[in-house]
Amino acid sequence: MPAFPAGVSDRVRALLQRMTLEEKTAQLVGYWLDQGGEVVAPMADEMSTAGDGRSFADITRDGIGHYTRVYGTRPVEPAERAAWLWQEQRRLKRETRLGIPAIVHEECLTGLAAWKAATFPTPLAWGASFDPELVAEMGEAVGASMRELGIHQGLAPVLDVVRDPRWGRVDECIAEDPYVVGTIGTAYVRGLQRAGIHATLKHFLAYSGSRAGRNHAPVHAGAREVRDVFLPPFEMAIRDGGVRSVMNSYAEIDGVPVASDPALLTTLLREELGFDGVVTADYFSVAFLETMHGVAADRGEAGALALRAGIDGELPTGDAYLEPLREQVRTGRLDETFVDRAVLRVLAQKEALGLLDAEAYEDEPPAAVELDGPRHRDIARRLAAESIVLLSNEGLLPLAATAGRVAVIGPNADRAEALQGCYSFANHVLAHHPEHELGFEIPTVREALERALPETEIGYARGCDVEGDDRSGFAQAVAAAAGADVAVVVVGDHAGLFGRGTVGEGNDAESLELPGVQRELVEAVVATGTPVVMVLLTGRPYALGWALDGDGPRPGAMLQAFFPGEEGGTAIASVILGHTSPSGRLPVSLPRSAGAQPYGYLRPVLGGPSEITKTDPTPVRPFGFGLSYAAFAYDDLRVDDTAATDGRFTASVTLTNTGAVAGAEVVQLYGRDPVASVTRPVAQLLAYARVELAPGQSRRVSFDVPARRFAFTGRGLRRVVEPGTVEVWLGRDAETEATPRAVVTLTGDVHEVSVDDPRVVDVSVA
Amino acid sequence: MPAFPAGVSDRVRALLQRMTLEEKTAQLVGYWLDQGGEVVAPMADEMSTAGDGRSFADITRDGIGHYTRVYGTRPVEPAERAAWLWQEQRRLKRETRLGIPAIVHEECLTGLAAWKAATFPTPLAWGASFDPELVAEMGEAVGASMRELGIHQGLAPVLDVVRDPRWGRVDECIAEDPYVVGTIGTAYVRGLQRAGIHATLKHFLAYSGSRAGRNHAPVHAGAREVRDVFLPPFEMAIRDGGVRSVMNSYAEIDGVPVASDPALLTTLLREELGFDGVVTADYFSVAFLETMHGVAADRGEAGALALRAGIDGELPTGDAYLEPLREQVRTGRLDETFVDRAVLRVLAQKEALGLLDAEAYEDEPPAAVELDGPRHRDIARRLAAESIVLLSNEGLLPLAATAGRVAVIGPNADRAEALQGCYSFANHVLAHHPEHELGFEIPTVREALERALPETEIGYARGCDVEGDDRSGFAQAVAAAAGADVAVVVVGDHAGLFGRGTVGEGNDAESLELPGVQRELVEAVVATGTPVVMVLLTGRPYALGWALDGDGPRPGAMLQAFFPGEEGGTAIASVILGHTSPSGRLPVSLPRSAGAQPYGYLRPVLGGPSEITKTDPTPVRPFGFGLSYAAFAYDDLRVDDTAATDGRFTASVTLTNTGAVAGAEVVQLYGRDPVASVTRPVAQLLAYARVELAPGQSRRVSFDVPARRFAFTGRGLRRVVEPGTVEVWLGRDAETEATPRAVVTLTGDVHEVSVDDPRVVDVSVA
Repeated sequence: MPAFPAGVSDRVRALLQRMTLEEKTAQLVGYWLDQGGEVVAPMADEMSTAGDGRSFADITRDGIGHYTRVYGTRPVEPAERAAWLWQEQRRLKRETRLGIPAIVHEECLTGLAAWKAATFPTPLAWGASFDPELVAEMGEAVGASMRELGIHQGLAPVLDVVRDPRWGRVDECIAEDPYVVGTIGTAYVRGLQRAGIHATLKHFLAYSGSRAGRNHAPVHAGAREVRDVFLPPFEMAIRDGGVRSVMNSYAEIDGVPVASDPALLTTLLREELGFDGVVTADYFSVAFLETMHGVAADRGEAGALALRAGIDGELPTGDAYLEPLREQVRTGRLDETFVDRAVLRVLAQKEALGLLDAEAYEDEPPAAVELDGPRHRDIARRLAAESIVLLSNEGLLPLAATAGRVAVIGPNADRAEALQGCYSFANHVLAHHPEHELGFEIPTVREALERALPETEIGYARGCDVEGDDRSGFAQAVAAAAGADVAVVVVGDHAGLFGRGTVGEGNDAESLELPGVQRELVEAVVATGTPVVMVLLTGRPYALGWALDGDGPRPGAMLQAFFPGEEGGTAIASVILGHTSPSGRLPVSLPRSAGAQPYGYLRPVLGGPSEITKTDPTPVRPFGFGLSYAAFAYDDLRVDDTAATDGRFTASVTLTNTGAVAGAEVVQLYGRDPVASVTRPVAQLLAYARVELAPGQSRRVSFDVPARRFAFTGRGLRRVVEPGTVEVWLGRDAETEATPRAVVTLTGDVHEVSVDDPRVVDVSVA
Repeated sequence: MPAFPAGVSDRVRALLQRMTLEEKTAQLVGYWLDQGGEVVAPMADEMSTAGDGRSFADITRDGIGHYTRVYGTRPVEPAERAAWLWQEQRRLKRETRLGIPAIVHEECLTGLAAWKAATFPTPLAWGASFDPELVAEMGEAVGASMRELGIHQGLAPVLDVVRDPRWGRVDECIAEDPYVVGTIGTAYVRGLQRAGIHATLKHFLAYSGSRAGRNHAPVHAGAREVRDVFLPPFEMAIRDGGVRSVMNSYAEIDGVPVASDPALLTTLLREELGFDGVVTADYFSVAFLETMHGVAADRGEAGALALRAGIDGELPTGDAYLEPLREQVRTGRLDETFVDRAVLRVLAQKEALGLLDAEAYEDEPPAAVELDGPRHRDIARRLAAESIVLLSNEGLLPLAATAGRVAVIGPNADRAEALQGCYSFANHVLAHHPEHELGFEIPTVREALERALPETEIGYARGCDVEGDDRSGFAQAVAAAAGADVAVVVVGDHAGLFGRGTVGEGNDAESLELPGVQRELVEAVVATGTPVVMVLLTGRPYALGWALDGDGPRPGAMLQAFFPGEEGGTAIASVILGHTSPSGRLPVSLPRSAGAQPYGYLRPVLGGPSEITKTDPTPVRPFGFGLSYAAFAYDDLRVDDTAATDGRFTASVTLTNTGAVAGAEVVQLYGRDPVASVTRPVAQLLAYARVELAPGQSRRVSFDVPARRFAFTGRGLRRVVEPGTVEVWLGRDAETEATPRAVVTLTGDVHEVSVDDPRVVDVSVA
């Protein structure tokens, strides 16, 4: 018998008492509404339940938990959809027995997934910015748009820690470091929820650990890895961010599908972490217990398993949680109290969202909505600018405005979609419906350079596509480069879903070479002798050793951008021309090869190169790497000698911009526990701070570090801080020390960490 | 306080009572003896402790547990070494206070690792043979040679289940299926121990699961995978094979180094599985707790951790278990009863080996030893013949003796070492010391074909090396092929240790393409239009899709041999010429690419190709695949309808050789549990039988299957058989059904499996 949710109001409890089994289960499911018009999101037609012949009134006769994707599937006018939504919610209030409106959820990872809504940089770009405050601003702007449209819940952020760049959904992830994912992800949650939208953490748990980076493939991980790598971002977003919803992962971990696992969804999530919101099913994952995982014989068993485990609501529609679940209850195979537990949580969510109040949707729907106004544009531009990583620069950048003729080349140079991640699908209009109006502005790199350099002769050649082996455009590209003083070659990914594209959900990779013939294109342009600025617009890190460290002619400079959004082209042009000093840092290691995967910087000694293996997994560029037009010196590291295992210590350093231009440094504090009861990483990011400095300026950066940053899950599977000495230092990146190492002695007993212990390092910049 | 070993004799207990701490700890370590002469095994000079300036009498003043590698490091005359050994053991008996001789251990994976001792096929070849009886014969022959030389313990077999072909030590493994590893490995143990040699199971546990196939890299595995995949072979060799020693794995599993883990080395190994022999440290693994894993601050801590965990003896020398461990006891940090526990086990082993008896080594050492006699040759030839896998045959094989001129081409065509695995290092004499005498006969493929076809004109060209990019020999190879009626191209690996070679211990790979320019050589030869028989001599499966399924011209036939040993060349010639019908079956999947790894056939639905990922890990040829010159029909599958979860069922089928020649079929019984409480594989080999059939002959093959073959580790980490329906069928391989699927209903309650439940399927062939 499940424990009932604590803290549920009398109103909600009374409402439950009035409900039939049919009405209860109806609150646990969503319904995918037809929007008319052509489909933008792949599979939407298959997934939509709109075409099943029943009237909408009939479908919602017992009420409905969620409306699924009111805005986010087709290029429809948001204001028109809003009018429809208001009307539908009023109908639910007036024509169903209990009069409860539906929760409206949408995707919102890179901005609201609706036509003409601002498309922001992807999460890898958030990670590269190392700027949680700006990400929170973005989340709040996104949430404000959603709120205006009558939306309640956003299916973001993705807090999966990157474990293998072959996985297509790396495009949706923030970083390979759990603390970066946790701090940035929590900032997004705070922003979105400040605007009144319930954020949804994806995907609890360990989804990104899928074998060989294949989407949905089994996760081979032990309990310690699950708790020390995959869990912390969720813990932070729950404990520090107060997130209201969590989505289960599709994964099976060591043979147990998460959607059927009460140890994860109830014991860990609710009892240990204290989460008191709603667990929302990832689309179809309840049915997958039968069809994909083979742990249920039919939909009823699948539904009962998921409900018992702790999934409160089924999305996108009621596949198992309607009639099959009712039958489980009627035949005595499922105790109705499990249904009641979930309904109470859903009703409590509706109450918190104001949906049980008389005035809900009695106001007028918005006549016009501004989904991409100056505020959105400003945030998008700043975040894009902060996220661009300068990988190499042999004196070529920044280009002088008088640098002469410029050739812009490459399949991503003049394509609006090349700036968008896969969850910007609602605005992938041009790729899928070239006859359709884009509806808003996404300047490409080519366009941005043309605007910024109105006096300059700017040639253009596409050269090749992102995918495929058509080299017929090479000659034109080579000619363009040969006739120019500098060539900007923009290559990378085409984000998409399920087979459309080179990265994004379902677009996993067996190779980490650049897709198609793009490497050959770059090599052909480099071979002309014209200096080359290589710009990468990708959704995963690629094996770029040939361009960075190859023996032959190389690009003179390389910029890595992770789908920087609607202002990304402008930001890239700004960096190229030196209006912005690049300040992004790699949130993921740049891999050597697909055959060296999986690899992550949080590795013990034997996870790296060693005498007893011929292979060397060392990345081409490490986590945290990024160059600048400025230059930074680190001096006078001071670290407390001792700290209690349940206490804190401080580390501070003086940072000076010794360069000639203003710039921002991402100050990275690393640590290592050289002797512990389990193996620990050779370097672990303890904290970070983005610091802006004028030329010649010095600032003192201080970190107030809870000893808990050295906590790990010990042999008894309890999280502990052990006494002993640890090392701390400032790093240029995860592999390069900016200061000598200092030693802190952690004193006292083994400290068993509680969920209320501080998780975050306090940073001050004087 | 540890439990003392049960069943230890009064003599051993009394002996312990007489011992000082120094004498006790001396029994727990080995000493690597200098052999004189040049080193064959890499690192032996570094590893040997002989050069430390002390006299041998001084070193063994307190006694010694083991002599390490008396025979197996340099090409020394075995009889000379035996004389030295007898003398040394007598000295220990007479000149040390307690007079206890040393255990002498050697490597013996592919035969005794001593100069001129027979080199047998490697374990992958054992797996490919699917013939446990023959492997037991081999083990007994190996053991007899060792016994003759006064050796007591063999450091074999390797029971690590193949998980990633990138790992160099795949060369030492039997198969990717735990049941095949368990049955074949147990057969080897039985054979070796029948000869009076204590076998040593390597490597307990999960070593082969190292990340990205990098040697010693962390293992990311959960408790269920550890118990259901890695454990069963060890369980079988302990429970069914009565093995006397187990070696710990170098691995850390989910952050815990095995060498420091009492949960694995004591609770699981001894308390659950009932193992009562000696746990022997893998070389240097105790010190690695300090130097590699960072779970000990110094050697003393490392020693105490390992001893408490359950490692009884330290090899190859006493790095931690001598003075550092004594200091731990003297300072009260380690309870001496842990030392006593280990000493009792070691002394019990010495007693069982007769080393405590007065007559030990009082006989005369062997004046001459036959380490490669007719019995060895016969077994080596039969096992090699049974292990060769015919991967493709477009009507080219067998070659008629009148087929015309033959060109033999390739870097492995005429190289004795190409037939030997990395643990045949003691006979890799020619590779490392070309001036040295090989000392015994290993006919190459070229030599074997020349002997078998004395009337035929046989050309030869090496073409290229196994490694490197020298294509200067291509022209000669192409000319040889062009001038012949058929070309036999022999390519593959060069086995070696730690950087010498393309496969073997330490020789991990990031790519699964054939090493060097060998693919280009094959393609160049194929391009001549002369029909090509491609022969692979490898220690791992390679990505051979281009040769098997490529669109262009291809080899007309392909033979995969896994280092088939001293008679391998002869066996390959015999198969090529049709004197033997090929009957080996792939013990490992032939991979698509390195980027698709890890992959194994024992995968759940989502471990394979699916709609939600663009990547397809399906191997080029599946586990169990192999063609024949004969042809086999399967008819009349009969399977019991029901069986108790704690009972058995029978499955039988009629097998007919419908071909024109005699041949052997490896009959493979597969099963699947479509609905279970955890995800289960889409196919699992339940049992197998190697069946010889004359043309036209039929035989009835019956399997008496314990329901336990469907057991798995359930959610509560107990091994169970669940009631419900399961499917069984005969398969040509893991992916191809030879019969329809039959259903068996398992009745009764969930059966919790005990270690005494039968593990093995009884097979009868009528």
